[in-house]
Amino acid sequence: MTWLDIAADDPFGVHNLPYGAFDPGDGSSRLGVRIGDRVLDLAALERTGLVEADGTLQAATLNPFMALGRTCWSAVRERLTELLTDTAFRAPVERLLLPLAEVTPRLPFDVGDYVDFYSSEDHATNLGKLFRPGSPPLLPNWKHLPIGYHGRAGTVVVSGTDVVRPCGQRKPPQAEVPTFGPSQRLDIEAEVGFVVGAASSLGTPLTTKDFQDHVFGVVLVNDWSARDLQAWEYQPLGPFLGKSFATSVSAWVVPLDALAAARVPAPAQSPPVLPYLADDRTGYDIHIEVVWNGTVVSRPPFASLYWTPAQQLAHLTVNGASVRPGDLYASGTVSGPERGQVGSFIELTWGGAEPVTLADGRTRTFLEDGDTVTLTATAPGPAGTVVGFGEVVGRILPPST
Amino acid sequence: MTWLDIAADDPFGVHNLPYGAFDPGDGSSRLGVRIGDRVLDLAALERTGLVEADGTLQAATLNPFMALGRTCWSAVRERLTELLTDTAFRAPVERLLLPLAEVTPRLPFDVGDYVDFYSSEDHATNLGKLFRPGSPPLLPNWKHLPIGYHGRAGTVVVSGTDVVRPCGQRKPPQAEVPTFGPSQRLDIEAEVGFVVGAASSLGTPLTTKDFQDHVFGVVLVNDWSARDLQAWEYQPLGPFLGKSFATSVSAWVVPLDALAAARVPAPAQSPPVLPYLADDRTGYDIHIEVVWNGTVVSRPPFASLYWTPAQQLAHLTVNGASVRPGDLYASGTVSGPERGQVGSFIELTWGGAEPVTLADGRTRTFLEDGDTVTLTATAPGPAGTVVGFGEVVGRILPPST
Repeated sequence: MTWLDIAADDPFGVHNLPYGAFDPGDGSSRLGVRIGDRVLDLAALERTGLVEADGTLQAATLNPFMALGRTCWSAVRERLTELLTDTAFRAPVERLLLPLAEVTPRLPFDVGDYVDFYSSEDHATNLGKLFRPGSPPLLPNWKHLPIGYHGRAGTVVVSGTDVVRPCGQRKPPQAEVPTFGPSQRLDIEAEVGFVVGAASSLGTPLTTKDFQDHVFGVVLVNDWSARDLQAWEYQPLGPFLGKSFATSVSAWVVPLDALAAARVPAPAQSPPVLPYLADDRTGYDIHIEVVWNGTVVSRPPFASLYWTPAQQLAHLTVNGASVRPGDLYASGTVSGPERGQVGSFIELTWGGAEPVTLADGRTRTFLEDGDTVTLTATAPGPAGTVVGFGEVVGRILPPST
Repeated sequence: MTWLDIAADDPFGVHNLPYGAFDPGDGSSRLGVRIGDRVLDLAALERTGLVEADGTLQAATLNPFMALGRTCWSAVRERLTELLTDTAFRAPVERLLLPLAEVTPRLPFDVGDYVDFYSSEDHATNLGKLFRPGSPPLLPNWKHLPIGYHGRAGTVVVSGTDVVRPCGQRKPPQAEVPTFGPSQRLDIEAEVGFVVGAASSLGTPLTTKDFQDHVFGVVLVNDWSARDLQAWEYQPLGPFLGKSFATSVSAWVVPLDALAAARVPAPAQSPPVLPYLADDRTGYDIHIEVVWNGTVVSRPPFASLYWTPAQQLAHLTVNGASVRPGDLYASGTVSGPERGQVGSFIELTWGGAEPVTLADGRTRTFLEDGDTVTLTATAPGPAGTVVGFGEVVGRILPPST
């Protein structure tokens, strides 16, 4: 039990302790740990000598700390737990707590490479039907490897950042030539992102067993998508401008250690996978909620994903590609089998053909200017607790033109 | 005329002055400028006060200097020219010159995002025929926008780095299921890369006119490609592991200012492009040579590219995506209309069906272990000079298994 005055069922209790970066009000970026509705100033804490992490907690982002590796991550987490539960430490620690409402979240890590997978069978099937009507929705390679591609790392932004509606080319099927203008099919993708901490070497693949040693933690991801831009540009080299204008991540990185009680068996795979993709089928029971202008429109179940994050890591390095601290790989849109479980609006409204009605009585197909989307999530924690994820919120601004 | 003892026709004369980073032998990374077969130590030069760049020349990579913008780039280039031509500066500058042979090149910039375009009409046509036989080789979007995708920034390596043959999944058309193993169709892609210096703001597109203010310089790029991995994985989200194991760049970044005399009209475009892609049709007359185990097998002409680098920059930011110092965007494989002008071996040997014979009498289709590929290039410089590019060399090592 923590000595802080927070409820036993607080999803940001001492069983969670997610890391982030924040601006205390002076324009700087400082590392912190969230506990309840407060932030523990890690930079100041390290300077007191109460925690020791080779000075990495003085950095503006988590990258140097994440580079230290799992032994160090676990030691720091254990020490933080001790400091927040043993009343002997209350006096020196309590004065380093800041109200969450008084700080501004910053991007918690410098993003190295950003990879986006496509690992939900229901999502891939739905998108196949919508983008390639009349063809088999799942391509022949889909069950043999976790399909993925590189996204733009430089436009990953922290929750709360407004999203300017992108302009670009689109060509409706009946048109002769493409036209230019603001996207008319602006969408979201609700995803779970895995943040790499420990680096690997170029030329040396990681295995599925290396997942725990290399992945530091988990964020929520909203991979904003302009479907009209994407549909016109994506052959033959994949999505580009339809995705690269913004990808939002939650401000708090939930340590993998906080998700031990959330492990559940991932779906069985058939046909069998190649040996380098064999794993222990560890999924994570993360329940996402998609909130559109205040209305919960969907509850995507992360546990339904066909490919696990351990398989994704093994696949993305099997060719010898190295990973670096700050690399982010996202699950791909999380969709369950039911309409109320999909992770994108193109699925929710079936390509815009079936509008949804929000709580204010207005209907929507794709995003309108001024709309706000919030993703939240929880997972089971130890002893009946709940692990909360920081929200990912973003509001759509009109195009700048 | 420089006071250095170098030939008037040296492609690395004072009209060129490419920037790079080098290890002087102590394991550090230091900035330098190449002149003939020597390197001028920029860090030491700045400390003498003979050149002034806000201390950015003390960094391990070019990123801080590149972030200063064109006014500063031009001022430093002018000053370097003065120091290397006015004999009054000979004594203090000469002692800061190191023999090129005694230093080790380092990656000259931290790569932000790496984008690879696909802007050669001959290459796209050839690949379309090889990858999608029986379909129109050029897809309907190709002449409306410069097709591109994001590659892996963390595996961009400097010339001289060995390339371990990647393993992965491939499925020959006649096979029922994919198999796993070392790539059997390991290839190159000869490209020209543009290095972004000055950043732009998220949500604000750049125009084709902004090219000169945001692009710092040019490198040669070898985008190593495993064609068998690529063919099996690339639908529907584009190339991933077939490309992400290594991308080699030349060690010396040729400033855009050094290429003023190399400007040539780019091919006319039909159908007309959308207004945001309109440009002054400035191409660059860069002549590439592809050398396979010592034999020149191809001479790709960069001037033939359909989409210019100014169009590529405008396109990649038109959706509001920002650029950062160190972003690298490559032209895509440079291929001319003739067999002796192609930038990849899959084109040179027509999918492996037509082997080439090298000077040693051996034949090749794709790369074998131990093979070395070197890309070199020149462009016209001012007053009849020639601008040299640093080579991109890489040797294939057997898979690590």
